[in-house]
Amino acid sequence: AASPLLSPLTTLRRYSARRRGGSGGGISSSRMNALAATSRNFKQAAKLLGLDSKLEKSLLIPFREIKVECTIPKDDGTLASYVGFRVQHDNARGPMKGGIRYHHEVDPDEVNALAQLMTWKTAVANIPYGGAKGGIGCSPGDLSISELERLTRVFTQKIHDLIGIHTDVPAPDMGTNAQTMAWILDEYSKFHGYSPAVVTGKPVDLGGSLGRDAATGRGVLFATEALLAEHGKGIAGQRFVIQGFGNVGSWAAQLITEAGGKVIAISDVTGAVKNSNGIDIAKLMKHSAENRGIKGFDGGDAVDPTSLLTEECDVLIPAALGGVINK
Amino acid sequence: AASPLLSPLTTLRRYSARRRGGSGGGISSSRMNALAATSRNFKQAAKLLGLDSKLEKSLLIPFREIKVECTIPKDDGTLASYVGFRVQHDNARGPMKGGIRYHHEVDPDEVNALAQLMTWKTAVANIPYGGAKGGIGCSPGDLSISELERLTRVFTQKIHDLIGIHTDVPAPDMGTNAQTMAWILDEYSKFHGYSPAVVTGKPVDLGGSLGRDAATGRGVLFATEALLAEHGKGIAGQRFVIQGFGNVGSWAAQLITEAGGKVIAISDVTGAVKNSNGIDIAKLMKHSAENRGIKGFDGGDAVDPTSLLTEECDVLIPAALGGVINK
Amino acid sequence: AASPLLSPLTTLRRYSARRRGGSGGGISSSRMNALAATSRNFKQAAKLLGLDSKLEKSLLIPFREIKVECTIPKDDGTLASYVGFRVQHDNARGPMKGGIRYHHEVDPDEVNALAQLMTWKTAVANIPYGGAKGGIGCSPGDLSISELERLTRVFTQKIHDLIGIHTDVPAPDMGTNAQTMAWILDEYSKFHGYSPAVVTGKPVDLGGSLGRDAATGRGVLFATEALLAEHGKGIAGQRFVIQGFGNVGSWAAQLITEAGGKVIAISDVTGAVKNSNGIDIAKLMKHSAENRGIKGFDGGDAVDPTSLLTEECDVLIPAALGGVINK
Amino acid sequence: AASPLLSPLTTLRRYSARRRGGSGGGISSSRMNALAATSRNFKQAAKLLGLDSKLEKSLLIPFREIKVECTIPKDDGTLASYVGFRVQHDNARGPMKGGIRYHHEVDPDEVNALAQLMTWKTAVANIPYGGAKGGIGCSPGDLSISELERLTRVFTQKIHDLIGIHTDVPAPDMGTNAQTMAWILDEYSKFHGYSPAVVTGKPVDLGGSLGRDAATGRGVLFATEALLAEHGKGIAGQRFVIQGFGNVGSWAAQLITEAGGKVIAISDVTGAVKNSNGIDIAKLMKHSAENRGIKGFDGGDAVDPTSLLTEECDVLIPAALGGVINK
Amino acid sequence: AASPLLSPLTTLRRYSARRRGGSGGGISSSRMNALAATSRNFKQAAKLLGLDSKLEKSLLIPFREIKVECTIPKDDGTLASYVGFRVQHDNARGPMKGGIRYHHEVDPDEVNALAQLMTWKTAVANIPYGGAKGGIGCSPGDLSISELERLTRVFTQKIHDLIGIHTDVPAPDMGTNAQTMAWILDEYSKFHGYSPAVVTGKPVDLGGSLGRDAATGRGVLFATEALLAEHGKGIAGQRFVIQGFGNVGSWAAQLITEAGGKVIAISDVTGAVKNSNGIDIAKLMKHSAENRGIKGFDGGDAVDPTSLLTEECDVLIPAALGGVINK
Amino acid sequence: AASPLLSPLTTLRRYSARRRGGSGGGISSSRMNALAATSRNFKQAAKLLGLDSKLEKSLLIPFREIKVECTIPKDDGTLASYVGFRVQHDNARGPMKGGIRYHHEVDPDEVNALAQLMTWKTAVANIPYGGAKGGIGCSPGDLSISELERLTRVFTQKIHDLIGIHTDVPAPDMGTNAQTMAWILDEYSKFHGYSPAVVTGKPVDLGGSLGRDAATGRGVLFATEALLAEHGKGIAGQRFVIQGFGNVGSWAAQLITEAGGKVIAISDVTGAVKNSNGIDIAKLMKHSAENRGIKGFDGGDAVDPTSLLTEECDVLIPAALGGVINK
Repeated sequence: AASPLLSPLTTLRRYSARRRGGSGGGISSSRMNALAATSRNFKQAAKLLGLDSKLEKSLLIPFREIKVECTIPKDDGTLASYVGFRVQHDNARGPMKGGIRYHHEVDPDEVNALAQLMTWKTAVANIPYGGAKGGIGCSPGDLSISELERLTRVFTQKIHDLIGIHTDVPAPDMGTNAQTMAWILDEYSKFHGYSPAVVTGKPVDLGGSLGRDAATGRGVLFATEALLAEHGKGIAGQRFVIQGFGNVGSWAAQLITEAGGKVIAISDVTGAVKNSNGIDIAKLMKHSAENRGIKGFDGGDAVDPTSLLTEECDVLIPAALGGVINK
Repeated sequence: AASPLLSPLTTLRRYSARRRGGSGGGISSSRMNALAATSRNFKQAAKLLGLDSKLEKSLLIPFREIKVECTIPKDDGTLASYVGFRVQHDNARGPMKGGIRYHHEVDPDEVNALAQLMTWKTAVANIPYGGAKGGIGCSPGDLSISELERLTRVFTQKIHDLIGIHTDVPAPDMGTNAQTMAWILDEYSKFHGYSPAVVTGKPVDLGGSLGRDAATGRGVLFATEALLAEHGKGIAGQRFVIQGFGNVGSWAAQLITEAGGKVIAISDVTGAVKNSNGIDIAKLMKHSAENRGIKGFDGGDAVDPTSLLTEECDVLIPAALGGVINK
Repeated sequence: AASPLLSPLTTLRRYSARRRGGSGGGISSSRMNALAATSRNFKQAAKLLGLDSKLEKSLLIPFREIKVECTIPKDDGTLASYVGFRVQHDNARGPMKGGIRYHHEVDPDEVNALAQLMTWKTAVANIPYGGAKGGIGCSPGDLSISELERLTRVFTQKIHDLIGIHTDVPAPDMGTNAQTMAWILDEYSKFHGYSPAVVTGKPVDLGGSLGRDAATGRGVLFATEALLAEHGKGIAGQRFVIQGFGNVGSWAAQLITEAGGKVIAISDVTGAVKNSNGIDIAKLMKHSAENRGIKGFDGGDAVDPTSLLTEECDVLIPAALGGVINK
Repeated sequence: AASPLLSPLTTLRRYSARRRGGSGGGISSSRMNALAATSRNFKQAAKLLGLDSKLEKSLLIPFREIKVECTIPKDDGTLASYVGFRVQHDNARGPMKGGIRYHHEVDPDEVNALAQLMTWKTAVANIPYGGAKGGIGCSPGDLSISELERLTRVFTQKIHDLIGIHTDVPAPDMGTNAQTMAWILDEYSKFHGYSPAVVTGKPVDLGGSLGRDAATGRGVLFATEALLAEHGKGIAGQRFVIQGFGNVGSWAAQLITEAGGKVIAISDVTGAVKNSNGIDIAKLMKHSAENRGIKGFDGGDAVDPTSLLTEECDVLIPAALGGVINK
Repeated sequence: AASPLLSPLTTLRRYSARRRGGSGGGISSSRMNALAATSRNFKQAAKLLGLDSKLEKSLLIPFREIKVECTIPKDDGTLASYVGFRVQHDNARGPMKGGIRYHHEVDPDEVNALAQLMTWKTAVANIPYGGAKGGIGCSPGDLSISELERLTRVFTQKIHDLIGIHTDVPAPDMGTNAQTMAWILDEYSKFHGYSPAVVTGKPVDLGGSLGRDAATGRGVLFATEALLAEHGKGIAGQRFVIQGFGNVGSWAAQLITEAGGKVIAISDVTGAVKNSNGIDIAKLMKHSAENRGIKGFDGGDAVDPTSLLTEECDVLIPAALGGVINK
Repeated sequence: AASPLLSPLTTLRRYSARRRGGSGGGISSSRMNALAATSRNFKQAAKLLGLDSKLEKSLLIPFREIKVECTIPKDDGTLASYVGFRVQHDNARGPMKGGIRYHHEVDPDEVNALAQLMTWKTAVANIPYGGAKGGIGCSPGDLSISELERLTRVFTQKIHDLIGIHTDVPAPDMGTNAQTMAWILDEYSKFHGYSPAVVTGKPVDLGGSLGRDAATGRGVLFATEALLAEHGKGIAGQRFVIQGFGNVGSWAAQLITEAGGKVIAISDVTGAVKNSNGIDIAKLMKHSAENRGIKGFDGGDAVDPTSLLTEECDVLIPAALGGVINK
């Protein structure tokens, strides 16, 4: 089978997925972790730029890393303690910006790498922000909504003095969503007064941006268009395999379909579907909402999710890690 | 040779020393690091107390850990970046308390363990404080006084919002001294107004406590007296070997001599001296001040420092890691 | 005589006026006070919305009520104490917003009701604000300008920590005006730095909005237009009776005249005038400014102010309570 | 039956008890409420002192009154809203001081009166404090410990900016205890740093004062001694009736017994006991702790609690309202 | 006539008095002002100490000088503007300390000198404070009490962020007194909460120190005793001339008399009295209080105040500049 | 020779230049300093406006003046102390605005005058700002870049509480530039969080305004155009003499040339050039950048700089004092 085209932006995510034995696994030779990969890339860039070695070292060390203990009463009355953290990489170009993820295997090295990547991403996009990333080591799917609220509020109490509209502005990430941001906003405001700008990705009703929901998926579309354009191609007529059907994958699938692409296979944690004539994404959206996953969808053949990564296609989109809150 | 008596308090330090291939090395079988040792001890205590497992877990997770980048101009005009950190273990009983050390091999696990030990020490001594520990990964001996000042001030700028008289009160530790505390006090006061209470171990002229200089060495004397008393013995007439002649070792040597003990061997980083009739400590103090170390002292036989740990004696005092600032 | 059309928005004010034996009195059957009326209306709305009873109760309790003692030296050197207050009803949708009134009969229940109405008004208008209301129990007409300044500054000193651009933004109301807001702004700025956004309704020279002066009167025009439109009518050709010729009534009269309406009777605290051919409002404005009231105006027949409320007309506009500061 | 001696200090409490139909009820002629009684007493004092009428008025108006909405999730997941408040009467002589009570019938007038009395009490005792009082309208006995904790923390979040070691220092009162103060201390410290001095009456382990538990009961002893001394008598040999066996009544009973008094009748909410030979208080303490009340005690005759107030005795001590938290 | 003994401490004051054409004038050759004299003395000391010239320069430059405009409404309704200032000389040894004077000829150079002298005085007395001085250019005797209150409050509003218990602690000086400090304390507390320690010299009822009233006069006694002791003499039997009978002079006279000294001449702004048998100070105190000055006292001969400075005596005490507030 | 036209705006600068013996000196009759001139002008304006004399006096007194000691280590390790200051004249119309200059002869009276002029300039231009000015008494050309950085940071530490986006916003002035503003911004942000708006004139990369570099020179063009228009003339065809070729003079020369003016003589501190056919400004810019000054330029005749002021021309532009940092 022909090797699919992979955009450079997804390379890091692939490394990360692999380290965990990844949901879609299979590619096993590389052993480099996210931080090592990011640092290697930065060092290559530094060499090309002729950066002073002291400045290079300074840019690799994060501005600040913080870990805090978050203890909450569970619904059953027992206590549970979680470790929350925030890595703030660089604020030379403006307030730091980056997601907060809730995941049971939050990996300090990976988060460190992602915070650093946020610095480079905001710089390359030339917007006046720096880079950060954070999260809590927990399994959001195992916590009730009210436990998640208590955990988010305690975490916010512990870091409120280190974030802020001129300092560091969190956003949703894996395992967190607009509701999480609303809790942060509310708890932060107890200490600093009404501060809607302290988070992005909050509910539209509380001042969140229109289009935020689809933004990452739309970014996948744009990146894919750019990558294909380098090969003299367009979205229309290409065959896509999408690994993941959460916030990113489902929007990517919709937008690619709108742009004339043919999605021939999709997986999520419940299963995978394949249809070489193109999957009816609107129908799959409806099925997934009603059945909490792809499993059982009759608009194609059910296949082994791990088989997707070797499926013949023009573009493979790995989007497998997000959107698992309270399913 | 008879095995020397070792006070429980020095056990942890021994483990630490060993891990680094320790200055006095030699004991090699144990591989347990400081954090593992501390956690194991705490778990044994928790079991004896019948602690709820959730509470036990909560007590093992530090309240807050912070790492910050400290970039300073060196005297030669180049930039240098160092990583400073502070582990705040627990504040349930009052403001956290613990030293700040400057050492090129600052080990996060060890610091974590020492912060935790500060919690248990203040609790056992029943003083209204919690536990913390911190430092900067640097070789203080390789930095000029003015570089040390700049580094200390930058570190203070980065953590000033997280320490304070009601929050966390630093103190001198390995590689830092009263001058370091004076810099912290001055820099902290720029942000929060004149705050002499924000550090302990500051110069007596700035409100430091009388007797602070000798305090750790005097504590060694008291612990040793208590240990010997359990064996029905006193300081007088015992033979002591002391590894280290910095702030701790030199005061311990003086006080033990005053109490009638006989110090028969002492080492520091420059050399070691042995005299089975007892070393003249006052004379050694003078020699060391003038020659920046024991080396060349004529009040006994020069010996290999590593041989001290197997020297026959009644009490071995390992005090080898401190007091190296700007020698 | 035909019963005049009354816009729903003026209903509450009518109730309030009545309770005090109101300046224009006459309608006497209803005994329900402002808070009871507001709560009854809210409960009906809650029922229609199917609101949870706990949420309903929560929405009825104000977020915060505060009463403060304001003691000032009078011009004659004696001390005088006044009670100032602020009711902050709800900030779920943004900073709270509402007027500050100076009146000798400030009625806690009424203010409570008005604060709650501000919440519903900002919500219905879908602007990101909550609701509040406040004032001082005093007779502004009996105080000199310099006593009013001292009183306003003392009141501001007592509540400055509870208002602010992200918390609660006062505005002029009965017995207060742009000058009052300027004093609040200046006193607040002593504590929090130059903060022009802490009040609205301030002088245009200090950053106040153009058109603010006419805004309430213009709102009366819009509401009346909307009410008439429901009956298939327009302003033009209708006969209006206006009770009150302060900030609201005089602007309403001007704007209604401009829109082709005919104002056939107007009253203020000094007297009332009636002219079935339509009163010349521009001329009345000039007369009122020169004579501090309607009394003596020769562009119609002088009538008993209380007779206005039963005068035959198409629209009766009750605007009798405001604008009495230092006339 | 002879009328018992009543100390002036208990007069107010008697009025209060009566208004509610009081636990021991029965005296019905007086209709004056607490605030009216306090104001009347103050006005008499002002007249005797020849106070300027403006100053008198100023001293009657509280410095600040605040009411806040406290909404918490109940253990069953539903929301519940309570009204918390704080009346701060006067701070001319130092930080304001006064209890926080949790009671379902918190009466604004009574609290206002009690805040004012705190001002006079601290002034008469010549300690550098002013007067305040506050509470939450709730039935603490109907709330679980964890609901009480959430309610206390929310209340503290709402008033934290208005209390403080130099401003207003709360203390336990009816329906609250050392645990309540510990929650306030902890929540307040989240906003202002570790602040043990922000409340008094906290647990001894957190810095509370030794003897605080018995203090009110001991005050009853001292007041009673002083009252009897005016009649040329002592505690020894007098017959006491005590209405209430909570924190105040039980300590008063113990201390009076130690001082040689004979307690011949005691009541609490569960029942009453009478023994003209004197009740064995130590034995009653044990019974009450084991049986959550006096009911069933075999060291005397069970009687109707309401009969106590007309029982023949030398001193009647009304101490019936406190200490009902989570029995 | 024999030249009187003069203590070194009064030298500076003599220079200052002279520059203004001084109340007691007469000595005219010297033209050196206070700042020049202080700097010259400091430079001599620096030379004796072998101070580095850079450090010497640094010690001569004040830490901070501030001038602020203070505009108040006069009692007649007009506006008046005054210049207030504060010179903060050095805080290396602790919070700065120094008086606030109200005088129509406040001389920046003199104040600068006095601030510097406060630094040396607190250092020589080895108390942990630095030095400052300030004031307002106004004639306190021409302002009503209520104008003085307004002026003091406006001045405090302008400098409140630059003073404080850990920064700079004002005290009364020429033309100010305990009442002035009470106004500063109250106004400062509006911004920073109840802060009695922000000023010294406040009324005893507000926490002022006992003995503060007599302190400066007592200091004159101690200095005079020390000066005389150097000449082998004591207070007893010496003849004293005291220029000034304000707070300093009157206490000095009382204390010197108690110690056995004979006060043979005293002056104030109203006149002077001479009695070679010793003036009855208690009687003069009474006369002065009743007649607002010495003038008309019949316990000696009325003399020309300027003649005092050349009167034959053993000790001349120049204390002529203070205590003129609202006489 | 004909007297050149001088715009009123440059009058003050001429006075200032003259007082110092100015770089281009020569006009010697006037002896009035900048403050006297400014005050005289203001008093004339006040007279024309019919200002109340109290208000006039109040407007002449600055709101606040501050002087601070700034001590830094020089590169050679010695200490050096400088005096920094800030005069804040008036904030009635908004935050104060004005430059910070580094010059060895900073003259308090001149700065006072310039601060006052900023108030009138922002008022006349009707932008919502007040007026301020400040600086440090130092020779920026004698300090290394790293000494200038340390000095700027220490100065910022000393005044950070008195400036701010709502209070007082510094800008570059003589001897300071965009780099200076970047240091202030960075140091200020350590205390108050990321605050790019605290200074204007910062580097474009940090949010500075486009066109700021040329702004003052462009203002000279506009003012000259307006002045000529009053005489019925335009820039085109006029002959210009420009004294100074720093930031102001070089931009003025370029823009005047672009507008058709003929620059016939220019001077800077290195020399002067004259060419009656018009100097080629682009060529002179290149020469000056390469040779650090005009000296040696071959596009005209080298002349004595002092002769420029009497050179025959239509417009003389004095722009001789700025832009000397680190040449």
